[in-house]
Amino acid sequence: MKNIISKRILDATLRDGGIINDFFFSDEFAKALYLSNVNSGVDYMEFGYRADKKQFNVNEFGKWKFTSDEDIRNIIGSEKADLKVSVMVDVGKCDVKRDIAPKSESPVDIFRIATYIDTLEECNKIAEYIHSLGYQVTCNLMAVSTYSEKQLKEALNILAQMPISAAYVVDSYGALYPEHVRKLLSMFIEKMNTEKIAIGIHSHNNQQCSFANTLEAANCGAYLLDGTVMGVGRGAGNCPLELLVGHLNGEKYHLEPILDFIEDYMIPFKKSGAVWGYNTSYMLTGITNNHPKSAIEATKTGNLNFNKQFKNLSK
Amino acid sequence: MKNIISKRILDATLRDGGIINDFFFSDEFAKALYLSNVNSGVDYMEFGYRADKKQFNVNEFGKWKFTSDEDIRNIIGSEKADLKVSVMVDVGKCDVKRDIAPKSESPVDIFRIATYIDTLEECNKIAEYIHSLGYQVTCNLMAVSTYSEKQLKEALNILAQMPISAAYVVDSYGALYPEHVRKLLSMFIEKMNTEKIAIGIHSHNNQQCSFANTLEAANCGAYLLDGTVMGVGRGAGNCPLELLVGHLNGEKYHLEPILDFIEDYMIPFKKSGAVWGYNTSYMLTGITNNHPKSAIEATKTGNLNFNKQFKNLSK
Repeated sequence: MKNIISKRILDATLRDGGIINDFFFSDEFAKALYLSNVNSGVDYMEFGYRADKKQFNVNEFGKWKFTSDEDIRNIIGSEKADLKVSVMVDVGKCDVKRDIAPKSESPVDIFRIATYIDTLEECNKIAEYIHSLGYQVTCNLMAVSTYSEKQLKEALNILAQMPISAAYVVDSYGALYPEHVRKLLSMFIEKMNTEKIAIGIHSHNNQQCSFANTLEAANCGAYLLDGTVMGVGRGAGNCPLELLVGHLNGEKYHLEPILDFIEDYMIPFKKSGAVWGYNTSYMLTGITNNHPKSAIEATKTGNLNFNKQFKNLSK
Repeated sequence: MKNIISKRILDATLRDGGIINDFFFSDEFAKALYLSNVNSGVDYMEFGYRADKKQFNVNEFGKWKFTSDEDIRNIIGSEKADLKVSVMVDVGKCDVKRDIAPKSESPVDIFRIATYIDTLEECNKIAEYIHSLGYQVTCNLMAVSTYSEKQLKEALNILAQMPISAAYVVDSYGALYPEHVRKLLSMFIEKMNTEKIAIGIHSHNNQQCSFANTLEAANCGAYLLDGTVMGVGRGAGNCPLELLVGHLNGEKYHLEPILDFIEDYMIPFKKSGAVWGYNTSYMLTGITNNHPKSAIEATKTGNLNFNKQFKNLSK
């Protein structure tokens, strides 16, 4: 039972998945993922963050925390496929002037800037700078579930004036139900000129709504849909790319390359001890609209006292 | 972030969960679940099937495959709580005349009859008989994703005339997306007098849409919402009861008793080797609108050749 809609899919496996293994994905893994994305028709692939090596110890993280142009070229080779290359920048954690070359010298197509509302001004400056280098830029508004309607409207007024090609609803806490997604999409669309600024959705699976929220956003006008293979990502993880592609399979997209990648790389990755995905602790941070950090800790230590967790989160 | 809606929740843990352990839940487990449901405000608890002991070997299945009135009394005691007791009957697999006593002699409030469209006539006869004994009866239309619109409309015309208090949309294959749920709910509501026949939803999680589909059905007018603790159930499992209760927590419903039950009984049950929940094989049977049996087999044998599975299912 399918519904074909014209959308764009972004694979954030290396980037959001990197949060659970400190970005230590091998080149073999990255190359296989790249080919899987190209062959399945995925539109964008996010290779990682471009974090500031002065702020983060290069010995503690794999290369995709810092994702240089060279790292990307090593994976994609000299001939660029249709798939567009994205890199994420966290506001305050990247030296954009030192570490971002002009577009003409780089394999990157898009920089996505992750920001909270209180760093929007800084985000705007970064967006203007990166845009001036010739790149497309997006603004990914994190933790949208934590803001009041008034705060969001003010933020959207700023976003609407930024030199960005997309504004993202980012449900960092996995706190949204489909009804909230509908409301947020309507607010985003009301404030944006969507001919110029597309709307994107990046969801987390704390309440098993990640895929359904992505579909709901798509139905409400979101154009850019984020997924990761097997939903790999921090805590409860993300919208599984294979569900998105499976939903749209047969026209532009094809599921088979992703199924091979799951068998050959993701199952071994999981078997090697990588931990992510929905559990009761993540549900509780989602329900209470909290950052997943306490659930990550509970999952790591095997803390199963869910009522104590719930009580602490409900304070 | 909550939305309080007036609905009724049914816990099908013993019944749908029983499919994965051949119904060998101990009385201690059943009692703890019962108390958890009573204390959390859950409205209905389904204790199991009432299968015909002449058709099924009593040595191969636990008591909740056959669920006698006596079995239920042993759990709930002599004083009945507000929680209503449900038992499921599969068309053709229960000797209703021999095995169902008049309502006045039984702790059961509701018999739910599971049927496919081609056994609707037999279902109708059973419904009339059980209703004549004084029980409420529901008709649970399985595998709704496999029928044409014409077939469904004809079935709904029959359902609308049956002596039932509810008609259930049962997504046995986990093939529905929220958009399909909207359409089905609108068809069910159009054909039923919902003052007399409420609409229910029972979903499976093959595409991680079980909870979201249940919410969507509720938004579209479904009154009876099925869940199981931790989503335990055949294959990819069901809508997690704790997500439903968490969504509605604070008014009629309370999450705490279910959290204790998860810690004390469900986590040990899972650790004992019980297997259920979303994986790539279940996704494939959901996407291709097939019975989950091949995915259950693949999961059991550790078959990770997802492309071969997809190819076989797409034939």
